[in-house]
Amino acid sequence: MTNEDLVIGRNAVTETLKAGRSVNKIFVASGSVDGSIKKILALANEAKIVVEFVDKSKLDKISDGARHQGIIAQVAAINYFSVEEILEFAASKNEPPFIILLDELEDPHNFGAILRTADAVGVHGVIIPKRRAVQLNSTVAKTSAGAVEYVKVAQVTNIAQTLKILRESDLKIVGGDMSGEKNFTEADLTGGIVLVIGNEGKGMRRLTRENCDLLVKIPMVGKINSLNASVAGAVLMYEIFNQRMKRG
Amino acid sequence: MTNEDLVIGRNAVTETLKAGRSVNKIFVASGSVDGSIKKILALANEAKIVVEFVDKSKLDKISDGARHQGIIAQVAAINYFSVEEILEFAASKNEPPFIILLDELEDPHNFGAILRTADAVGVHGVIIPKRRAVQLNSTVAKTSAGAVEYVKVAQVTNIAQTLKILRESDLKIVGGDMSGEKNFTEADLTGGIVLVIGNEGKGMRRLTRENCDLLVKIPMVGKINSLNASVAGAVLMYEIFNQRMKRG
Repeated sequence: MTNEDLVIGRNAVTETLKAGRSVNKIFVASGSVDGSIKKILALANEAKIVVEFVDKSKLDKISDGARHQGIIAQVAAINYFSVEEILEFAASKNEPPFIILLDELEDPHNFGAILRTADAVGVHGVIIPKRRAVQLNSTVAKTSAGAVEYVKVAQVTNIAQTLKILRESDLKIVGGDMSGEKNFTEADLTGGIVLVIGNEGKGMRRLTRENCDLLVKIPMVGKINSLNASVAGAVLMYEIFNQRMKRG
Repeated sequence: MTNEDLVIGRNAVTETLKAGRSVNKIFVASGSVDGSIKKILALANEAKIVVEFVDKSKLDKISDGARHQGIIAQVAAINYFSVEEILEFAASKNEPPFIILLDELEDPHNFGAILRTADAVGVHGVIIPKRRAVQLNSTVAKTSAGAVEYVKVAQVTNIAQTLKILRESDLKIVGGDMSGEKNFTEADLTGGIVLVIGNEGKGMRRLTRENCDLLVKIPMVGKINSLNASVAGAVLMYEIFNQRMKRG
């Protein structure tokens, strides 16, 4: 990540503005000003943000081919949180922590989609490794439909070490894994929890898997027998969410 | 769709070959021949398919920027099925029909991800409208990780008319919708069912919504309050799958 990031597309820019995030400048394609862009311009005006009208081709160039829908915002780089801040956030809400840990996820679309679902189910924070994994960037922000503004993300250098510390804080470490001993609907997923989602192709690393208290599998009856990482994550997050709701 | 489609990437090409689909030619990047490509070459050899070794840059060009992992197959265009064939397929398995209907879905990645989940949960077929909706293409095939080879897809000209016919066949038409009267986990989703998933931005069309017997919502507690279409579809499909498993 550079010190400046791009937020691309109407929903993403709207959420960025609504979240009060520091926006340096907004580029709007002159030909694209319709009702939805006007609403964004009103928000930008309220927040005294510089708006520059440019030719659509300039936006095509800035966005490097991503669908920008006539609008791109330049924002300060996203701030990462610490694991402690995520735990404190859960405590401040009087909720048992609900944390997602992504073990070497690669695809920014998957990361964005997971953030979007994480927002929907009230996840307190998402932990990612600093290396060999996708980081927060403008593709993640766009795919997240703005959730990147609300879901806290922490970067850690050592996933196994982090899991040990979280387990000592009485959190249950649950990995989604094909070799899981229980179907996800049959496992007790209540209480403070860290849900671990592995790499798209390789799944969790051995050391990460060994640090899980429980492996749960998503049953499949088809020919392919694998799910998209963001889909698998969503199915597991919603099961945790449902179990929390029933209990609460 | 043209009469020739591309299947891009190692998993997708492998599944295409395993499914016995008619492949016209396989392009392999000369520099990419490792263990996993060798396995594909063995399958191709068995099936007497022409393999052409080319420079990676040619694959970059053919795939138009999509990640090809050193391999692309040229295949005959995908065959669509009829709604009747989908119903007959369910009957042949002695299962109450489990059908997905996509109402004007736009994004090929969502379509591909939905096909992948549909395969995993044993969906008998997916119905899409012929117009104003994404059709089967190489992006869908790649995102589906090969599921496009196994899940039957039907194109129809009139969604509302199709839903009426399906309802007369005693299928329950269930739409995923924010305005749903019941949470998805509280609804009875057993028996023959058509799950309707709407457009990414606009949801279901009015006429489609009116043709549903039941609207179910996915509860959300976040700030964004919307899910990716393939994620919402997956969460609902897995609930249907779980209810079927419990009953069966």
